[in-house]
Amino acid sequence: MPHRIVCLGELLLRLGAPDRQLLLQTPQFEVHVGGAEANVAVSLARFGHTAAMVSVVPDNALGAAAVGELRRHGVDTGAVVTGPGRMGLYFLATGAIQRPSEVLYDRAHSAFALAAPERFDWDALLTGADAFHLSGVTPALGPGPAAAAQRAIHAARARGLNVSFDGNFRPKLWDAWRGDAPAILRTLMGEADLLFADHRDIAVALGAEFPQVTPAERVIAAAQAAFAAFPALGRLATTIREQHSVDHHTLSALMVTRDGAVHATPAYPLTPIVDRIGAGDAFAAGVLHGRFAGLDDAACLHFGLAAACLKHSLPGDFNLVDVDDVAAFLAQGRFDVRR
Amino acid sequence: MPHRIVCLGELLLRLGAPDRQLLLQTPQFEVHVGGAEANVAVSLARFGHTAAMVSVVPDNALGAAAVGELRRHGVDTGAVVTGPGRMGLYFLATGAIQRPSEVLYDRAHSAFALAAPERFDWDALLTGADAFHLSGVTPALGPGPAAAAQRAIHAARARGLNVSFDGNFRPKLWDAWRGDAPAILRTLMGEADLLFADHRDIAVALGAEFPQVTPAERVIAAAQAAFAAFPALGRLATTIREQHSVDHHTLSALMVTRDGAVHATPAYPLTPIVDRIGAGDAFAAGVLHGRFAGLDDAACLHFGLAAACLKHSLPGDFNLVDVDDVAAFLAQGRFDVRR
Amino acid sequence: MPHRIVCLGELLLRLGAPDRQLLLQTPQFEVHVGGAEANVAVSLARFGHTAAMVSVVPDNALGAAAVGELRRHGVDTGAVVTGPGRMGLYFLATGAIQRPSEVLYDRAHSAFALAAPERFDWDALLTGADAFHLSGVTPALGPGPAAAAQRAIHAARARGLNVSFDGNFRPKLWDAWRGDAPAILRTLMGEADLLFADHRDIAVALGAEFPQVTPAERVIAAAQAAFAAFPALGRLATTIREQHSVDHHTLSALMVTRDGAVHATPAYPLTPIVDRIGAGDAFAAGVLHGRFAGLDDAACLHFGLAAACLKHSLPGDFNLVDVDDVAAFLAQGRFDVRR
Amino acid sequence: MPHRIVCLGELLLRLGAPDRQLLLQTPQFEVHVGGAEANVAVSLARFGHTAAMVSVVPDNALGAAAVGELRRHGVDTGAVVTGPGRMGLYFLATGAIQRPSEVLYDRAHSAFALAAPERFDWDALLTGADAFHLSGVTPALGPGPAAAAQRAIHAARARGLNVSFDGNFRPKLWDAWRGDAPAILRTLMGEADLLFADHRDIAVALGAEFPQVTPAERVIAAAQAAFAAFPALGRLATTIREQHSVDHHTLSALMVTRDGAVHATPAYPLTPIVDRIGAGDAFAAGVLHGRFAGLDDAACLHFGLAAACLKHSLPGDFNLVDVDDVAAFLAQGRFDVRR
Amino acid sequence: MPHRIVCLGELLLRLGAPDRQLLLQTPQFEVHVGGAEANVAVSLARFGHTAAMVSVVPDNALGAAAVGELRRHGVDTGAVVTGPGRMGLYFLATGAIQRPSEVLYDRAHSAFALAAPERFDWDALLTGADAFHLSGVTPALGPGPAAAAQRAIHAARARGLNVSFDGNFRPKLWDAWRGDAPAILRTLMGEADLLFADHRDIAVALGAEFPQVTPAERVIAAAQAAFAAFPALGRLATTIREQHSVDHHTLSALMVTRDGAVHATPAYPLTPIVDRIGAGDAFAAGVLHGRFAGLDDAACLHFGLAAACLKHSLPGDFNLVDVDDVAAFLAQGRFDVRR
Amino acid sequence: MPHRIVCLGELLLRLGAPDRQLLLQTPQFEVHVGGAEANVAVSLARFGHTAAMVSVVPDNALGAAAVGELRRHGVDTGAVVTGPGRMGLYFLATGAIQRPSEVLYDRAHSAFALAAPERFDWDALLTGADAFHLSGVTPALGPGPAAAAQRAIHAARARGLNVSFDGNFRPKLWDAWRGDAPAILRTLMGEADLLFADHRDIAVALGAEFPQVTPAERVIAAAQAAFAAFPALGRLATTIREQHSVDHHTLSALMVTRDGAVHATPAYPLTPIVDRIGAGDAFAAGVLHGRFAGLDDAACLHFGLAAACLKHSLPGDFNLVDVDDVAAFLAQGRFDVRR
Repeated sequence: MPHRIVCLGELLLRLGAPDRQLLLQTPQFEVHVGGAEANVAVSLARFGHTAAMVSVVPDNALGAAAVGELRRHGVDTGAVVTGPGRMGLYFLATGAIQRPSEVLYDRAHSAFALAAPERFDWDALLTGADAFHLSGVTPALGPGPAAAAQRAIHAARARGLNVSFDGNFRPKLWDAWRGDAPAILRTLMGEADLLFADHRDIAVALGAEFPQVTPAERVIAAAQAAFAAFPALGRLATTIREQHSVDHHTLSALMVTRDGAVHATPAYPLTPIVDRIGAGDAFAAGVLHGRFAGLDDAACLHFGLAAACLKHSLPGDFNLVDVDDVAAFLAQGRFDVRR
Repeated sequence: MPHRIVCLGELLLRLGAPDRQLLLQTPQFEVHVGGAEANVAVSLARFGHTAAMVSVVPDNALGAAAVGELRRHGVDTGAVVTGPGRMGLYFLATGAIQRPSEVLYDRAHSAFALAAPERFDWDALLTGADAFHLSGVTPALGPGPAAAAQRAIHAARARGLNVSFDGNFRPKLWDAWRGDAPAILRTLMGEADLLFADHRDIAVALGAEFPQVTPAERVIAAAQAAFAAFPALGRLATTIREQHSVDHHTLSALMVTRDGAVHATPAYPLTPIVDRIGAGDAFAAGVLHGRFAGLDDAACLHFGLAAACLKHSLPGDFNLVDVDDVAAFLAQGRFDVRR
Repeated sequence: MPHRIVCLGELLLRLGAPDRQLLLQTPQFEVHVGGAEANVAVSLARFGHTAAMVSVVPDNALGAAAVGELRRHGVDTGAVVTGPGRMGLYFLATGAIQRPSEVLYDRAHSAFALAAPERFDWDALLTGADAFHLSGVTPALGPGPAAAAQRAIHAARARGLNVSFDGNFRPKLWDAWRGDAPAILRTLMGEADLLFADHRDIAVALGAEFPQVTPAERVIAAAQAAFAAFPALGRLATTIREQHSVDHHTLSALMVTRDGAVHATPAYPLTPIVDRIGAGDAFAAGVLHGRFAGLDDAACLHFGLAAACLKHSLPGDFNLVDVDDVAAFLAQGRFDVRR
Repeated sequence: MPHRIVCLGELLLRLGAPDRQLLLQTPQFEVHVGGAEANVAVSLARFGHTAAMVSVVPDNALGAAAVGELRRHGVDTGAVVTGPGRMGLYFLATGAIQRPSEVLYDRAHSAFALAAPERFDWDALLTGADAFHLSGVTPALGPGPAAAAQRAIHAARARGLNVSFDGNFRPKLWDAWRGDAPAILRTLMGEADLLFADHRDIAVALGAEFPQVTPAERVIAAAQAAFAAFPALGRLATTIREQHSVDHHTLSALMVTRDGAVHATPAYPLTPIVDRIGAGDAFAAGVLHGRFAGLDDAACLHFGLAAACLKHSLPGDFNLVDVDDVAAFLAQGRFDVRR
Repeated sequence: MPHRIVCLGELLLRLGAPDRQLLLQTPQFEVHVGGAEANVAVSLARFGHTAAMVSVVPDNALGAAAVGELRRHGVDTGAVVTGPGRMGLYFLATGAIQRPSEVLYDRAHSAFALAAPERFDWDALLTGADAFHLSGVTPALGPGPAAAAQRAIHAARARGLNVSFDGNFRPKLWDAWRGDAPAILRTLMGEADLLFADHRDIAVALGAEFPQVTPAERVIAAAQAAFAAFPALGRLATTIREQHSVDHHTLSALMVTRDGAVHATPAYPLTPIVDRIGAGDAFAAGVLHGRFAGLDDAACLHFGLAAACLKHSLPGDFNLVDVDDVAAFLAQGRFDVRR
Repeated sequence: MPHRIVCLGELLLRLGAPDRQLLLQTPQFEVHVGGAEANVAVSLARFGHTAAMVSVVPDNALGAAAVGELRRHGVDTGAVVTGPGRMGLYFLATGAIQRPSEVLYDRAHSAFALAAPERFDWDALLTGADAFHLSGVTPALGPGPAAAAQRAIHAARARGLNVSFDGNFRPKLWDAWRGDAPAILRTLMGEADLLFADHRDIAVALGAEFPQVTPAERVIAAAQAAFAAFPALGRLATTIREQHSVDHHTLSALMVTRDGAVHATPAYPLTPIVDRIGAGDAFAAGVLHGRFAGLDDAACLHFGLAAACLKHSLPGDFNLVDVDDVAAFLAQGRFDVRR
């Protein structure tokens, strides 16, 4: 049952201010490794799969540390190579109450962003794989990554792999190099059988609007548009997040399938949130695990949402819970100390 | 009014992951000293009593550190001796939201578990004492501790001391040496005049079931069964905990007396919880203090619950609040900074 | 539009126990710089104004560190001089749930408290200033500071500056030297055109009582008494704080003007609170900024309350948010990560 | 063989900058408890004796923490009482290479300095004691402590106890209240049978000069003057410290006895020094232990020097080594890991 | 040129007191992963080889963390399995000056010690391997590990692999189960072609004495005895450590070959030592790398010594330097910042 | 006597691994602010002068933090502006024994490097200044900074200011944009009256070689060549560093004047070094202070060397000692605790 999943994306170092401080309020950073696809890879590895990361890091101590951290958590890093450029960084001041968390990206000129698409030999990289996963962050990083993403997802589909794509639309990154986001996203979404996306992602790709009243209605309408536009697409899944304060959200999830079925989960309160970064990636990894484990759509969705909820309880970008932790979440609501 | 209370039990080191991390997510442990009876002893010492600990630790820096920490908080450690065996440890990853805290015990082969019951001369140890306290963890640690517990509680009762027993049923510990928990617990409960126990503890001891609908009904039924089974028993008290999430509980308390009186406290919301470990011991110490201070049953119960609530606000196993802190809690609900 | 504001007051070092511990539960202190007027000065500097601090510190590393920290945050410290005496300290154990935070003052014999009022040449110090701000802590520190406060506020008013006074009544400080708080406070309030005060501050100054039922009614009644007593006074503003637990407050604000207008803000929930110290000073700075920026009374009040709310999300005494942060708070309620 | 030793002196909190930083270079303090006589008491307790501390602390969390720390290390704190005044503090920036460590005292107005000499009932306090120890810091703290010191040492001598006095001359403390150091020191030294003092201490007490060339010659000359002036004095012992840099000292010790014997130890290199504070107190405790253990003078001296050397390897004011550690030092020079 | 090396041994967690403190002087532990053979495996992985660890850990978070840390540093952990028993621990108080570091072992009843030798299928485990490495710690852990060690080394030799054995004699471990150290060690040494051992290791195995005057003479004599006793043995290498203080050692190395050649390195001063633990394992890994890289004996020895020296500069049990770092050490003596 | 000195250069954040660890050995960075000219500015500010920094930082929290830190230490930051580009970073792993410290620069694309030279209005910036200081790092950062440096130094000389230039040759930076280092350095050196440079700096600028045997001879020869090439040059000063290990250096200094005088200081041992970064800047600031204070050349040189030595005892890039600290160093060699 364990699957081999290949992920393409940038590795990042998060430099975070401790204890709800502002950046450099005191002169210390806590460091975590992250990256949209890397987060998915780590979570899948913790769920027992073989997750293989394809990436490029600088040939220095920072790149090596990021790779080592993925390896520590069980990711196959054999396809992470080194290249010219810097290590992608981001600085994080975690907020509180009504002060939002702030991310300061410092990822321009990274080794991954500068890598030529020819560096990746997808025939070799996808050999033995069951699935391929990509997020919308990767093509947003520049023309090289955009081309690499397109080559990769095309090769994956051509090989008949499970192909999933997580929208993750980041306008600032696209704007920085004036990338044609709609066109590129359409190419990528067109190759996927499973989309993690909400109505905003679909709106960007299709130049459409989804003015429905409720979030669920908007997602359903967007899914229908996506199924119309992308014949290969089988499912669209997303979390729906309601935010009461920085520390208190409510999370539910929705999946729409090409045959018109709509699956919805209960909504779970999340408070006080420890770390919200990476929850979307945790959701994607959870849904993918459900599929690899042969769960039905509703169960996949619930597994993904449970994984996403648990992520909020863990510091760092990675969702380090395992299958038993998710199962315990789903089985009940016992919250006392486990001895 | 200060009393001399003797407690028998194991000292433990807690090795905790910082900041809601998983164990060894980063390579650091924060250390606290604990142990069910030691927690009671520290709390009683902070309330102004002379609490004397009877225990065995290894003759090394870890054992000495645990003893020193008890002494620091005012416990009389003159009867803590050294012996062969290791220091009992437990590892703690404090959870959050819907991720439960996890305790990983590493206490097998401890100096306390290996100590022969003959090491304790109860005539000498109980001289000058007003009360004796024990929890169900101690007899669960192996045949030696079980025998020592029985000798101790019998000697205490024979001397006419106040004798309290806290159920604290831990099936994993009993299973490890196939101890006859019901028989031993019946012996111990039979010597106590005050039981800290809920319906599960009584069910184990008596082989009974308490299928009533509400927690309060179950506790009252269990208390009635306990009074029938244990002629020396005067009172049974317990907290009732409702868990909304890992960080949000509601706590109330109930006391049933042999004459049929039932005392109940208001329920207090606890959120966000800092550290829930040791709250039951804090409750026991609070009720005991109430008795030593001559409070009536309802006031004892309320004092105990207040102490238990305050424990949730403090890192570590010990309830380091003093009588003034509890009194302030009971007097009102002022929460602003005290200057 | 940036104004030059002069503040007179003591600088303090806060020595705080980390992570909700009791004082010296573990042997470490985290240090912050504070002081009622210094907090206002820092906040105004962060809002883009020139805030000049007038103070006295000891000629040692502690005094220099406090001054350096103000300078770091943009305060003009050219008028902070050195003198005999110690550095004012306070120790803080931040509470949780139902355990209140505790402040242990160790500020007696400070360089500021010992400074002779003649040390301050207000002609020179107020040259170029638009406004002067003082709190009730300063005159409470001893006869020297009380005299200095009176000279300063009188000089400020004589020059036609905006003069604001924040009640901040601390009976323990007044009692320590048997200062005539009502008389001195009346003098100071009599020179202010803007008072930050609630009914308790006014009650002390005027020897009055305000037995109205709701907090708002009490504040309005107190404001009317203040307008009657102090002909120069134009406005009285205050926050109204409801406390549900140590970690959960609700905050709103009220402003009453001489012409009888009453402005009230919505009430904002604050949970879980990171650090409540300095919120009153943050409010004052926010209202003052509103005035300097030409906002109308209602907008000033809302800006001040927003600043006060945001302070609760930041460790330390200083409200380090800037105008954009407050504007984002006021514009909406978006709480997700800003990337 | 364990003795009961009574010590009189102030308890202090050390607030130290971490990692060779300047004070408040980063906003953190590491806290240690100390005090000249408290250091001796802790060391003697670690050597197996009953060391009883007589002191006064404020009735707050800081005073309680200091007392708890002494108790943790085995000191009998039953005679530490509370009184008005503050907790004595000192701030420490540990130096390096050619930058000396700096101590910033903040101990004026302490509870101990303000305590009336009548608070101490020496008849009761010395009952059961074998020895009394005092340092020159105590009388330097003000007229109250000076009177208390004189009463105490006189009572101790009258009871026939071993009486030791450690010079520890601190001119700044004496100057602060214009105490007559020579007269008071002569009174105190006159009651001691064992002096820890070098030629500077004797020079102050006797108004003499010791212009000899080498340190050893100066100490011997001073000892002879002391024996002439103080008929009860039997021995004078001191360390001799040569300083090559802040991190590299050489330490030896000298003892002169009334019968003219001079004992000298080898000189030990100390580099790199971890913490030099409290080494003199460690020496005194080591020599005292030697006497209580019945060692001859040379062995006492060597034991004391070994204890002092080991102190340099330990962070904090206390010399936490035990008799086995000192014995290992003396037995050889094996420096490898002990497994 | 990269080789595949298989190592058999226990994984340990080191729980160390920070900053030269005694154990639990403050309540914190810094954690490192170690183990004699694991240290060799990590170092070889950092030198570019495929080092495969064979071990058993408990099926809990501690075991998983240890495995993850090895994987992070590039070790193949595919053959680390889980089994009943606890995680081996050791506590470390790093010493200073003349206070030796102290190790407190808490490794009894570990999953590795309890593992049956049948758990390891050496045919499978050694497939594809070029070399096998073992230390004397493994057979000392109990009858199971001793049997496993013998089976493994025999299988390795039978397959014609490079077989190295590091003496690492620990009498306390052997005594705990009364293992016949000489007989077992002779079996193991008899299968090795390369021994890391000094005269003490050989003395134990052969029941011989080597009373020569200098360390080098003793090692040479022991090597000759070893060549006589063990026909398969080709080389014996060891470091020679001179200890001036805990912080200052001098290290050199010696290799003796069967043909009588003796290679010696220069002696390098090591001061101030950061962490001496694991230096012997670093030496072994360095010599092994030299052999795999085709260096001659003298160069192998020098490479090994350089690796061992560099280990002293790094916190933790692992020697995390790479080949370039060692080459830089050997090329010269440039010590300035590399930019 | 205090002077106003203008410095032009980049501000950097140092992200350092704690406790002699490798980069990201544990996931934490300690942060310091630095930059060759900023270090000089801070040191001069601590010596009592008005040091004004001219620089460009990004308009984000990192840029603001760097500016705040300079302001904290007394630097006039009124001329630090914001501009497009990132914050310059460098990562530091401090070495030990024979493992050199490693700096990993991540400063490409910084706001300072991207700033157009026209951003700086030197007429305005130099008004009121007495001196201008620049290092060779600034022109090495790219064509913009190189042009800005030339404009600045030319303007400073034209105004008759004291002009100092510190060689600080960094070939990697020049190579990155193929800057014509010799030509540009000659321009800059040609405007200086005081050069901080050794023979390597002069060799680069003049294309010369200085094959003399001793460092002093090489510096003297280089100085003579510099005086010949640069008519405006009056003095050349440099430290001479001998490195025995990473932790143990010996430092002396040499000054050569146009009239042929050669001044040399004693050589000071530095061990164990806390932080060597910024020592050259500390030397420059010390010599400049000497000049501003009217010291003769030998005294200037000795003051500079003392400042440089003291820097080695302080964590961080800045030399935070003041004039009294340097004077104490020069007056003697007393290393004991200052109380």
